[in-house]
Amino acid sequence: MPLTPEQEEEIKAQRATPRQTLRAVSEGMEAHLYTAYPVLDHGFVRVIDYMGDDAAIVQAARVSYGAGTRHVSNDEGLIRYLMRHWHSTPFEMCEVKLHVKLPVFVARQWIRHRTANVNEYSARYSILDREFYIPEPSALAAQSTVNNQGRGEVLGPEEAARVLEILKGDAARCYDHYEAMISDEGQQGLARELARMNLPANVYTQWYWKTDLHNLFHFLRLRADAHAQYEIRVYAEEIGRLVADWVPLAWQAFLDYRVGGATLSAKALDCLRRMLAGEEVTQETSGLSKREWREFREVLGNER
Amino acid sequence: MPLTPEQEEEIKAQRATPRQTLRAVSEGMEAHLYTAYPVLDHGFVRVIDYMGDDAAIVQAARVSYGAGTRHVSNDEGLIRYLMRHWHSTPFEMCEVKLHVKLPVFVARQWIRHRTANVNEYSARYSILDREFYIPEPSALAAQSTVNNQGRGEVLGPEEAARVLEILKGDAARCYDHYEAMISDEGQQGLARELARMNLPANVYTQWYWKTDLHNLFHFLRLRADAHAQYEIRVYAEEIGRLVADWVPLAWQAFLDYRVGGATLSAKALDCLRRMLAGEEVTQETSGLSKREWREFREVLGNER
Amino acid sequence: MPLTPEQEEEIKAQRATPRQTLRAVSEGMEAHLYTAYPVLDHGFVRVIDYMGDDAAIVQAARVSYGAGTRHVSNDEGLIRYLMRHWHSTPFEMCEVKLHVKLPVFVARQWIRHRTANVNEYSARYSILDREFYIPEPSALAAQSTVNNQGRGEVLGPEEAARVLEILKGDAARCYDHYEAMISDEGQQGLARELARMNLPANVYTQWYWKTDLHNLFHFLRLRADAHAQYEIRVYAEEIGRLVADWVPLAWQAFLDYRVGGATLSAKALDCLRRMLAGEEVTQETSGLSKREWREFREVLGNER
Amino acid sequence: MPLTPEQEEEIKAQRATPRQTLRAVSEGMEAHLYTAYPVLDHGFVRVIDYMGDDAAIVQAARVSYGAGTRHVSNDEGLIRYLMRHWHSTPFEMCEVKLHVKLPVFVARQWIRHRTANVNEYSARYSILDREFYIPEPSALAAQSTVNNQGRGEVLGPEEAARVLEILKGDAARCYDHYEAMISDEGQQGLARELARMNLPANVYTQWYWKTDLHNLFHFLRLRADAHAQYEIRVYAEEIGRLVADWVPLAWQAFLDYRVGGATLSAKALDCLRRMLAGEEVTQETSGLSKREWREFREVLGNER
Repeated sequence: MPLTPEQEEEIKAQRATPRQTLRAVSEGMEAHLYTAYPVLDHGFVRVIDYMGDDAAIVQAARVSYGAGTRHVSNDEGLIRYLMRHWHSTPFEMCEVKLHVKLPVFVARQWIRHRTANVNEYSARYSILDREFYIPEPSALAAQSTVNNQGRGEVLGPEEAARVLEILKGDAARCYDHYEAMISDEGQQGLARELARMNLPANVYTQWYWKTDLHNLFHFLRLRADAHAQYEIRVYAEEIGRLVADWVPLAWQAFLDYRVGGATLSAKALDCLRRMLAGEEVTQETSGLSKREWREFREVLGNER
Repeated sequence: MPLTPEQEEEIKAQRATPRQTLRAVSEGMEAHLYTAYPVLDHGFVRVIDYMGDDAAIVQAARVSYGAGTRHVSNDEGLIRYLMRHWHSTPFEMCEVKLHVKLPVFVARQWIRHRTANVNEYSARYSILDREFYIPEPSALAAQSTVNNQGRGEVLGPEEAARVLEILKGDAARCYDHYEAMISDEGQQGLARELARMNLPANVYTQWYWKTDLHNLFHFLRLRADAHAQYEIRVYAEEIGRLVADWVPLAWQAFLDYRVGGATLSAKALDCLRRMLAGEEVTQETSGLSKREWREFREVLGNER
Repeated sequence: MPLTPEQEEEIKAQRATPRQTLRAVSEGMEAHLYTAYPVLDHGFVRVIDYMGDDAAIVQAARVSYGAGTRHVSNDEGLIRYLMRHWHSTPFEMCEVKLHVKLPVFVARQWIRHRTANVNEYSARYSILDREFYIPEPSALAAQSTVNNQGRGEVLGPEEAARVLEILKGDAARCYDHYEAMISDEGQQGLARELARMNLPANVYTQWYWKTDLHNLFHFLRLRADAHAQYEIRVYAEEIGRLVADWVPLAWQAFLDYRVGGATLSAKALDCLRRMLAGEEVTQETSGLSKREWREFREVLGNER
Repeated sequence: MPLTPEQEEEIKAQRATPRQTLRAVSEGMEAHLYTAYPVLDHGFVRVIDYMGDDAAIVQAARVSYGAGTRHVSNDEGLIRYLMRHWHSTPFEMCEVKLHVKLPVFVARQWIRHRTANVNEYSARYSILDREFYIPEPSALAAQSTVNNQGRGEVLGPEEAARVLEILKGDAARCYDHYEAMISDEGQQGLARELARMNLPANVYTQWYWKTDLHNLFHFLRLRADAHAQYEIRVYAEEIGRLVADWVPLAWQAFLDYRVGGATLSAKALDCLRRMLAGEEVTQETSGLSKREWREFREVLGNER
């Protein structure tokens, strides 16, 4: 359970008192504000605040491109045009602030996206809770044998059981020792900033994370991707669901041009033209390496 | 007059239809939304959107510093503590989006603040209006003789008149020629992206500019400073008035610690300690250069 | 002539005294250091300093991806892999510092690339030179009729002559007045920070501009593109020639995957799969808008 | 021992083959290149590359401020002027690339400095070494009782012994289990990206970290400060020693204006003026809170 009853009450209170504003309002996002959507076993994502909506993107684009945007008759067409031509600045005019609870090893990947504002719970000042990410057995996979970073097959039940026992046991013991070290009963009590070093990377932390829509799309493209680690992908997917309701037109354009799209190299485009002209192109005649050829065929949907 | 009647109508309409939101609301800022506050002869600043308020700063800080913030009993004390100790991330949790109309030479200084999102009116796509900044006679000053960048005395009335005649005449002629070059009557008409090169730097442009409160304070500290060029300072001062109503506690802390404060070097602190101990310190015995000594004395309020 | 004899002498001196270093050295870049390559009528680009080479990209990638990079046997393959999969951080490990002289309206576009360090010649402190960009007649084009931002046909000789006369005349007159206003002979002399507002946007400025290779590639992709304005494109192309000698492997990967490549949307990929399966797809049956269809056909090389 | 004999050999080789360059060279930094300086029990800092020197700062400043810098006759005076007046861009013209080995909990603080380029060793691709930070007994301190984040007294020998036993035991056991889980002998072997979650935060990681001098100074000001956690401060101090040899003039200015200097609020400056005028000011009459008063007195050196 990611939330305590007190937290549930607090969220209910935050959602109970609407106020008036003259700002742009996204009804889709208002429906989500403050609600904590569970992710993994103890984590969550919730929207604390947002700025702008689809119309704000259009408004900024029309300032920038002025007469150049008049021929694009509607908002949807303009937003698709902006996405297609990598005009990123209008998307930067929207901003979102999330409250996220997540395991430390996920936070370590996430923080690599530098263009964001972050306030993380500090284990120098405060005591971390006894909450650790313990994967579902279905998420326990072997090291991939074809890919140096990904996961391969799911572990068999026996090995999975061994792994879970280890993870649970070490988390419990490390946390017991963390508590024992900081305790000031009958001893001085180790400084928190030192004691935390004993906690494994599956302990949960939390932060406020604020970014603009352009950078959020970049984050989602990389982290909701099939090659991303499962444990960060589920956060990205949950955020995606929120964005779909916040800025539905921008979200559709993002799905079409970024998520579902593909970038082809000059060499790959050359192959394509030859294939469309009726030539039988093979890896040997393609000019592509074996790996590039395999990726190219995947884009064309022939193999996966 | 910075606004056309149509624009005045549009602002009235934007302010006429409040909607409900669950987000943090700053009443002080709501009162300013969309209204265009005149700056210089044709410019303006207006707030298009904002995110957060004083409470949002406190909320983010309490997440970060947890138990460490409990002893600071109230919001004001905590915000002052954050400002004093350069804890910048909680201030980054607030965001503001402005619509600004400004001369190009001011825009060129402004854009040097890189941590912001910008959508500027494009003179490649659109035709610039016939609007140029012509200073008030009181703003026409001579090159400073003590400072290599600032202004000195106000020009005498004759010289001022000559300058104004030049500025007005050149602006009008350059704009006439701009129009003549892009006209497609009886000729092909020069591309806008080329014709714009004939317009002087006092022509007005406009943009949407979005930044977070921490970076806005940095901008204001540099640009509302007495050493900043008058023509950007008046924008910074106008923005300051808006910020004062948006986040009044943060604004007071900013005034006390940044605007009214001063940074002293190790050498200057050493002088200070000697002075407080009763020693008569002079520039010669201070270890400071003449220029540093003068600046030090100014901070102490002895001379200016 | 972009350089004075004194400047030519200075460059010769800078190139005359090699020193020893233990750092990574790119012989290709050493050959270019300090030399000013002319761009437009008075502009130039020259390399002042650089950090890293192709091997530095590889070195950083191998730290990051460790065992994951071992199967890619050579540097070229690894660099191509990084470029293909948008692994941008290893490219950020190279840095370059350029000295650029350029018209103000080009500088205004250029500065929109925010992830760079800039020191621009200040017209508050110093007096700008009497140098203005006056286009070649072949660069004087009409506003495009199909595209709201680009250029169309080259102007006829008569109209071109009129335009050139205007540009030269206004530049000369505005500069004469600039000099007259700042002169302190027989008058106080207007402050430089004010007088500069009378100078048109084709006046030359100069700056030191430092950025990393990843962000430089992003700049080059947008600014060396056929849709970029000619006057910034020639700078991007000149910089591209320098980069090709600095990091030849990264440059080739950039050409193949970014410059010569193309991004296709999910809808376009679907069309492609149907076409490769033998179906006759038209704009009407494609699910693409007319504009998207035209761009898609261009990528396939069928029309332009 | 932070380095293996192979690594020592590699460094020797890197230092053995100087090459010629036309770039700016800092002799002080050349003497340090590649050498790994030990920090903590298994960590190190070493310089992989650098760009620029004191003269490069001056050169960029003279481009920017032109005539405004002529009256400052020498490089030292100009660099001090830039530092004093927060002119940050010339310092951004220098860049440094470090290779750092550090515990994960230190890396988590470090990465919060966003304006830097990073390539970290990936525990998704590679297997982490069995190396954990185990503090010296003298570094084992109790939670501060006056400050919510800092450390107080050093632990007594018995409690210290208990803590060290815990840290060593848990590190060893967690690493044993990490190895057991990823092993593919007689089992499938858990994916590395999952197994790493069992490792405590004192495990060592490493990265290439590249930043400019302005941002490095900001990092050093915060992290070499007495309030910074000891385990990151020792890295900052080691880097400081390298910077002192790289750009000695900038380093001295940094020490005087940032490290040894202090920022006083408007209220504190008012107290100061009254004190210098002979008034006896107490906390009660100062207008400062108790905490501010204590900090103010510390700056004046009266108490600590």
